[in-house]
Amino acid sequence: MCLQQPVGVGANHASTSTSREGEVSRGEDLEKEAEEWRLHPKFEREEVTVTRLEETFSLIGMVSAWLELDSPESGIRYDSELALRQELAYATYLDVRTVVLPPPRNRAHAADYARSINAILNDTFGSYMQIAIRIPVSEVERGTGSPSGLLAGRECGGLKSPQIVLSPGSIGGEEEEGGLDSAWEMWDVIRTVCGYNARLSIVLDLSPPFPLRPGAMDRWSAEPIRHLFLPATSFIPNAKGYPVLAKATQVFLKEVMQFLPIVILSKTQANLHGAGGSKGYAEYIRFLEKTSRPLQAMRTEGTLESFASTYMDRVQAPLQPLMDNLQSSTYAIFERDPVKYERYEEAVFQALQARGQKPTVLCVAGAGRGPLIARTYKAIQRCSLGRTTLYAIEKNPNALVTLQERNTLEWNGAVTLFFGDMRSVELPEKIDILISELLGSFGDNELSPECLDGAQRFLKEDGISIPSFYTAHVAPLSSSKLYNEVLHQTVGDETKNAETPYVVMFQATNVLSGEGGGVRGICGTKVQECWSFEHPRRDLFVDARGLPFSNTHNTRSAHLTFHIPHSGVLHGLAGYFEAHLYGDVSLSIHPETKAQKSNNMLSWFPFYFPLKDPLYLPANAELDVHLWRMTSRQKVWYEWYAESFLPAPTPTTSVMGYITPQTPNTPRQGSITPVRPPRPSPMLDASPSVEGPASFMDLGGGGELSRVKIGQTSLHNPGGRSSWIGL
Amino acid sequence: MCLQQPVGVGANHASTSTSREGEVSRGEDLEKEAEEWRLHPKFEREEVTVTRLEETFSLIGMVSAWLELDSPESGIRYDSELALRQELAYATYLDVRTVVLPPPRNRAHAADYARSINAILNDTFGSYMQIAIRIPVSEVERGTGSPSGLLAGRECGGLKSPQIVLSPGSIGGEEEEGGLDSAWEMWDVIRTVCGYNARLSIVLDLSPPFPLRPGAMDRWSAEPIRHLFLPATSFIPNAKGYPVLAKATQVFLKEVMQFLPIVILSKTQANLHGAGGSKGYAEYIRFLEKTSRPLQAMRTEGTLESFASTYMDRVQAPLQPLMDNLQSSTYAIFERDPVKYERYEEAVFQALQARGQKPTVLCVAGAGRGPLIARTYKAIQRCSLGRTTLYAIEKNPNALVTLQERNTLEWNGAVTLFFGDMRSVELPEKIDILISELLGSFGDNELSPECLDGAQRFLKEDGISIPSFYTAHVAPLSSSKLYNEVLHQTVGDETKNAETPYVVMFQATNVLSGEGGGVRGICGTKVQECWSFEHPRRDLFVDARGLPFSNTHNTRSAHLTFHIPHSGVLHGLAGYFEAHLYGDVSLSIHPETKAQKSNNMLSWFPFYFPLKDPLYLPANAELDVHLWRMTSRQKVWYEWYAESFLPAPTPTTSVMGYITPQTPNTPRQGSITPVRPPRPSPMLDASPSVEGPASFMDLGGGGELSRVKIGQTSLHNPGGRSSWIGL
Repeated sequence: MCLQQPVGVGANHASTSTSREGEVSRGEDLEKEAEEWRLHPKFEREEVTVTRLEETFSLIGMVSAWLELDSPESGIRYDSELALRQELAYATYLDVRTVVLPPPRNRAHAADYARSINAILNDTFGSYMQIAIRIPVSEVERGTGSPSGLLAGRECGGLKSPQIVLSPGSIGGEEEEGGLDSAWEMWDVIRTVCGYNARLSIVLDLSPPFPLRPGAMDRWSAEPIRHLFLPATSFIPNAKGYPVLAKATQVFLKEVMQFLPIVILSKTQANLHGAGGSKGYAEYIRFLEKTSRPLQAMRTEGTLESFASTYMDRVQAPLQPLMDNLQSSTYAIFERDPVKYERYEEAVFQALQARGQKPTVLCVAGAGRGPLIARTYKAIQRCSLGRTTLYAIEKNPNALVTLQERNTLEWNGAVTLFFGDMRSVELPEKIDILISELLGSFGDNELSPECLDGAQRFLKEDGISIPSFYTAHVAPLSSSKLYNEVLHQTVGDETKNAETPYVVMFQATNVLSGEGGGVRGICGTKVQECWSFEHPRRDLFVDARGLPFSNTHNTRSAHLTFHIPHSGVLHGLAGYFEAHLYGDVSLSIHPETKAQKSNNMLSWFPFYFPLKDPLYLPANAELDVHLWRMTSRQKVWYEWYAESFLPAPTPTTSVMGYITPQTPNTPRQGSITPVRPPRPSPMLDASPSVEGPASFMDLGGGGELSRVKIGQTSLHNPGGRSSWIGL
Repeated sequence: MCLQQPVGVGANHASTSTSREGEVSRGEDLEKEAEEWRLHPKFEREEVTVTRLEETFSLIGMVSAWLELDSPESGIRYDSELALRQELAYATYLDVRTVVLPPPRNRAHAADYARSINAILNDTFGSYMQIAIRIPVSEVERGTGSPSGLLAGRECGGLKSPQIVLSPGSIGGEEEEGGLDSAWEMWDVIRTVCGYNARLSIVLDLSPPFPLRPGAMDRWSAEPIRHLFLPATSFIPNAKGYPVLAKATQVFLKEVMQFLPIVILSKTQANLHGAGGSKGYAEYIRFLEKTSRPLQAMRTEGTLESFASTYMDRVQAPLQPLMDNLQSSTYAIFERDPVKYERYEEAVFQALQARGQKPTVLCVAGAGRGPLIARTYKAIQRCSLGRTTLYAIEKNPNALVTLQERNTLEWNGAVTLFFGDMRSVELPEKIDILISELLGSFGDNELSPECLDGAQRFLKEDGISIPSFYTAHVAPLSSSKLYNEVLHQTVGDETKNAETPYVVMFQATNVLSGEGGGVRGICGTKVQECWSFEHPRRDLFVDARGLPFSNTHNTRSAHLTFHIPHSGVLHGLAGYFEAHLYGDVSLSIHPETKAQKSNNMLSWFPFYFPLKDPLYLPANAELDVHLWRMTSRQKVWYEWYAESFLPAPTPTTSVMGYITPQTPNTPRQGSITPVRPPRPSPMLDASPSVEGPASFMDLGGGGELSRVKIGQTSLHNPGGRSSWIGL
């Protein structure tokens, strides 16, 4: 739906200042016509390329490439915005739902480009229009093609696989200023100024050359990419002449396919490749689908991805099984996990084996509907043992009914059931093995430490707990999607929503941290441990009933430093846990260990601590994360806060207290050794010599690296005002 | 009110990890006592220094210096917080309203210190307690004194001058890590984590040596300094042995006195100075008061400071005299201005003189209650002229009554009054001089451009407007006070409040920008011009009635870059205007020109564009400010957005598209020349040689300076959704 350049617009503005006062009029008539157009824009029939509703079904509109929303000339920007509004109004008239804008080219005026887009997004008319901005990933100057032609694309709803769209024309290349970081940075300005509007998305232009710098492309996972643009020129011929993609591009494409983008092809009929014809490109893309690991995982039964497919990037409030009594259906979902209970059975089995013939008293604390009891029962049967006694405690009176039933029907009454909170129930004897699964996605967030502290009084001197130990871990996360999700929760207000941790299955996200070291060599690993809990605690001071005096030993604080190799925007912290059950048996949702410890475990989606406001992080930044686990008599909660830094050379000259700069208005020119004035004299006023001659601090050239603070968040959830877990 | 170190607390914690699992108990009894204390803290009588209400009237409490809220040991932090709560509970019991905390010493744990303070501030009990944190300004290691003693201070309400308070003890010095910037930076972490709580303030410790670096002390003007601490050791003896302060300290003190802080003196009885005795210190401070320019200005009739004394840092919504009809009392306040109307009279006088004997038709557009008419009338009388005709236009029907009365009683019916909006009223003839005062604090914010556009049709070909030209200017501003004011407006919601410009008389504020240049030499001046308007506009295209077709020529955009020499937090933009009336007659509230152009003009307090969230700026940052003046048919509004950058060396090696980093986990060690791989081959997959060996980008060592983005704000007031001016 390209427009021809309307008469009288754009080229007439010769303003060289930021205001429009310097316009030179090129003829009163032309300017009058332009002014009329500005007031009442309209099209002539020959100016448009589409006219009928029948033509526009599933059409993706390409906005005229000559529009310059980021021109240095304010008059051109103004008219470009008017022309864009005119095109979009026409598109809305014809039910076109998605339009693609030409990429921003001029970093200095990215904010102007953005402000225009935002004004248009906020128009009440046309409020269903999706605006997609074409962003090239390439780092180099592009060949210039002529911006032209109709893009006839077919957009289909309800996608189960990426849609491929053909275009007869070509999208002209534009000069790319500054490279990959510059393109992403301009996108970030635009979406920030547009307030992360959900109708704003990216057409990721994969025209060659493709950036090979590892990790540089990861950032796009965090962004709303609904379309990919793949011109025929991005394909290379294989040995037989068929069009294929370079390895790096393949790898990227296979990853990004999980977001089901629409793939826009162009110049497929230009015969750029010897074999395959115009269909060869689409066929190759379909071929790549088959070997896309995440896409295939989504389609394979039994994987975490397929289980979670409807939960992707959907935030949920974490459960509070201590304060609340779960419903039978909730238990039922957890009991579907094919891995977790197998792990528990193995752990109990190993623990029993280690005890040989000794009689063993076991207790399942927090039995729910009984899956742990069932597995313990099985483990007992698999071992040839001494006498075993099996107790179970459950505070949910409703679930207790299920336990009674199973006890009769499945366990031959072998289990002695106790109703009540494990912190107050009394057992008839001390036990050898305490089994529980009170773990949340962050390990301790369902108050396992507090509960097991209350249950450990049952343990004999040499009794053990399964789990024996668990750790919480975080990593800095970027995700435009999650930021929006949290911001636009319909319940609650903005502050509360951003001060509540969630559980969510990550998909359109990117972990911003790199492996340890960083510029100064002091940063921790990509995912870092916050704290740990172990059971039982032999060092606690307990009252007459065996309960700890207070909960203070369960407070925690973590202060972590992450290396941020590429510029990005921090939207929150991803949280994970690992738990040691017994021997070599563990559970984990930690991304680097989950596969080998408990692969395809379904029970826990990762944790997510959101940030109320995004925090911009430049490349090589250091991110300090502060996380606290706080407690009162009634509740436990988390508080979090972050600061960002950039490594910088330590000033080499530091004179105690008497550093004076050069006279103002002189740009820094190297370094001048500062003079140290004498101590203040006893004269009525200090003599002029005390002030000393002007000198300048040398900021560069040697000395060790320190760091400069560049940003911070607010403190989230102080005092548990927005979210807490009830004791 | 110092506590002795309670038994069993603090020193017992030998934990070396961030959790408390590694505690070594030093005896069960001691730990049990400690645990009991943690649960139920209480004092023995010999542990406190104040017991009776009679003793605590206007007492400032000094919290025990041994508390370590920022200890690297989490156990010590925890117990310190408990002990602090215990002391504050006791202080609240005794009606002590202000307590002073020992300074933070450990930058790495400033966030922990802060979180504790915030938790305490948010307690419902003791919610009137003011918490003041002692912050030393010195850059050097302090001598160590013993933290001890009672500070008996007298705090008085309703201050008209700084209060001086004596203390028998001394405040011990603590090691100062990192210098001036470090102290302020720790304060910023604390107040940020505490959400800019209004009960949190600073005791600025001026113990020597005093920093001489110009501009470094300016930052404290933006912070809530309610107390100054001046030990006797900060005084130097003059020739006669009396205690005085060094020049730089005097200068600072005289400036900060305008905030009426309580001055806390100590060791005045230690005989450190030969003459003056213990009263000599207070007497000297009182002497400085007399030569404090801002303080004396506040007390002198006729100055802007004394006129505005009750308005300091109080934000007000700007007037909308076009959309609204002002009340007589509002006009009356403006008519008190001793300078503005004198300037207008002089301008009209000079314009008439320039016309010699020629007959002159003048029109006052927007006459209000008539002050401009009165001055114009006087100017006409002072000139011996040809014939003059005087018209006046006013749209406020109520003010029109006042005009009719004055016309009869004061101007002999010489004025022909027209009722209506100047954009639609018809005059009987063309005029020579159009006089108006439609200016707001930002120049154009009361829609003078739009109104005068509508009035210029009355002007003859060679007619002039008074004013002929006006400009708007901004500067980046820091002010903890204003940030709070805006955030806690009782009307409206947080978003709207932060997206509305205000008029406010600045006092506890600091302009963050430095003179032009900056590290890269490209930044503009301290205060920069955004845009300008001139009248009349001869280049507009007008309709049959002489009115412009549209208002587009009055849209503006400004893109300014400021140099930020010292680290600080940006809370908003200060706005000013200058207007040229005629000849050498101007009006100005621009801080650098107002004194010579229109000194002590009362009519306009500066403009203030707030930011919804503070933006942290490190030293030597570049701040890009984007400001837009937008228009629709019904209204005009401003939008604003800012980005921050740090100068950085441009990477010296840049291979197009094929830059690959070293293997992870290797800290950067100098530079390795990257290899440029050959173009993609036609093989099915790209061959391994395309990836190329790992190489690393050298970030330092030569090349020109570019800049790295480090932060940004959101876009404020998009579409005028929160604030606009009605046309």
